[in-house]
Amino acid sequence: MNIRIGILGYGNLGRGVELAIRQNPDMELAGVFTRRDPSSLKTAGAPVYHIDSASSMKDSIDVMVLCGGSATDLPVQTPEFARLFNVVDSFDTHANIPQHFAAVDSAAKAAGKVAIISVGWDPGLFSVSRLYAGAVLPQGSDYTFWGKGVSQGHSDAIRRIEGVLDARQYTIPVPSALEAVRSGSSPELTTRQKHTRECFVVAEEGADLARIEHEIVSMPNYFADYDTTVHFISMEELQRDHSGIPHGGFVIRSGRTGLEGEHSHVIEYSLKLDSNPEFTASVLVAFARAAYRLSLEGQSGCKTIFDIPPALLSPESGEELRRKLL
Amino acid sequence: MNIRIGILGYGNLGRGVELAIRQNPDMELAGVFTRRDPSSLKTAGAPVYHIDSASSMKDSIDVMVLCGGSATDLPVQTPEFARLFNVVDSFDTHANIPQHFAAVDSAAKAAGKVAIISVGWDPGLFSVSRLYAGAVLPQGSDYTFWGKGVSQGHSDAIRRIEGVLDARQYTIPVPSALEAVRSGSSPELTTRQKHTRECFVVAEEGADLARIEHEIVSMPNYFADYDTTVHFISMEELQRDHSGIPHGGFVIRSGRTGLEGEHSHVIEYSLKLDSNPEFTASVLVAFARAAYRLSLEGQSGCKTIFDIPPALLSPESGEELRRKLL
Repeated sequence: MNIRIGILGYGNLGRGVELAIRQNPDMELAGVFTRRDPSSLKTAGAPVYHIDSASSMKDSIDVMVLCGGSATDLPVQTPEFARLFNVVDSFDTHANIPQHFAAVDSAAKAAGKVAIISVGWDPGLFSVSRLYAGAVLPQGSDYTFWGKGVSQGHSDAIRRIEGVLDARQYTIPVPSALEAVRSGSSPELTTRQKHTRECFVVAEEGADLARIEHEIVSMPNYFADYDTTVHFISMEELQRDHSGIPHGGFVIRSGRTGLEGEHSHVIEYSLKLDSNPEFTASVLVAFARAAYRLSLEGQSGCKTIFDIPPALLSPESGEELRRKLL
Repeated sequence: MNIRIGILGYGNLGRGVELAIRQNPDMELAGVFTRRDPSSLKTAGAPVYHIDSASSMKDSIDVMVLCGGSATDLPVQTPEFARLFNVVDSFDTHANIPQHFAAVDSAAKAAGKVAIISVGWDPGLFSVSRLYAGAVLPQGSDYTFWGKGVSQGHSDAIRRIEGVLDARQYTIPVPSALEAVRSGSSPELTTRQKHTRECFVVAEEGADLARIEHEIVSMPNYFADYDTTVHFISMEELQRDHSGIPHGGFVIRSGRTGLEGEHSHVIEYSLKLDSNPEFTASVLVAFARAAYRLSLEGQSGCKTIFDIPPALLSPESGEELRRKLL
């Protein structure tokens, strides 16, 4: 029998989950759940239900994939839905993970459900790469670079500036910093040395471009600590050249072994993604499989990628995996 | 209490395990076991025992790390020692893994011990990278490149040629093939297109160098399918410039998502290692920690890297890992 998946929330991520399920023959999409009027949603084919009807479908959904935002949706929804379903979310507010974990754990344990939180690539695949690398090379340094990719938060910050119609911000790793890290020299790098920021901005006609540029590059937290380049372009150019949502990055650990640390080793994990939400969705779907299997084993409570035996992510049996991939 | 580790076999790998244990404050080395005369071994400080005394030390060793070779040692030793100890090995004869798994599993289950086999980087970290990437991107292609690094087997094959005093063979990925794979174009690559082989050979005085070179480049299985370069050098040059045992490689998966596969994604994992045996030893030691913890949980039987929740590899608690690495 297929694993029956529900999707809660139908933005870019929820749509990505709908598409990812099609690539996994052991899964089927039971339905999309939304706070909006179900008839207003245009899915790629999935049936749509109002969020209020989810609780009546407890027995026809094996795992609910929660596709809301980390700021306000998931802190409420993940504990709430973990009382009814096995759930997977992509909660990514790093500082609040311990608190989110605790809330989800108590809800899931009480209900006998499995919840896997903070699934995606960072947190997610990047995190587990850091874990493996750190366990193998205890004496070393970790580096994470993001990009080249679109930062939604930084793009939004630019859009709030007076006179800005639309904007797209790319985070870009500094190539010389990447090379220094890859050399195994364990450099100390400042924020400015690791990433640059490039902004494509559509301004209102007659707006003061110099003021807008100054407001961007001097914006605290977002841009002031970086070398930032601003390009003013037309709305047509923005839509033509910057409508994708690419992202990616690099997790690198360099460490030393030997009698006196004479041998250097570099472990690098990198992603180059055409579509950040579709890739994140694909990770969520693989972990939905693991949540289902853990639930079948009788487990319950909150887990993260650190707790999941990798074999549970694959549709293949242990025997097949050992034969083909080991 | 520290995890008490035993080492069976004291070649490059065993010595690497001895050094790796020093980097892990939650571990201590209980002893090195050898088939040789214990007084003939010069360790970096570890006590040495004859292999026959291992069985009498069952209660003072938590995990035995088996550092023998895959050809003849491990097929016998891993099942044998899994009857007495939790064990970890680096068995790397891919074709025989299913058979080795079965033999070790039945021995470990009967004794209530945990055995983790085929631990290292390939099989090992490369394998688990293939698993994560394949689970996340079901529609895609896998590529593994090895090098730049020393292949012991190929170096040995050259040494068996008449007139050769010593030799060192490097396996080198072809840069243009790597770039094609990274582009996401999913190229079909032949053996010759993926790797080149470079050989440094010390010949006997007066040996027929043209004949030696011809025997190398035309050697079936080892060199005939590759573009191979042969350099004749002096023994001094070999010892000065080629005494290290570096290795590494790349595991890359490219895949597609979207309504019609319109988005491409590339996942890359790579290693650049100054010392192949010391790095492999460091992986073994991290998995020894996991074997010990699984044993404390009451588990038994044979496992591979696919079965191990990553958190078990780290000395840090789940709470610390979530706070620092997630």
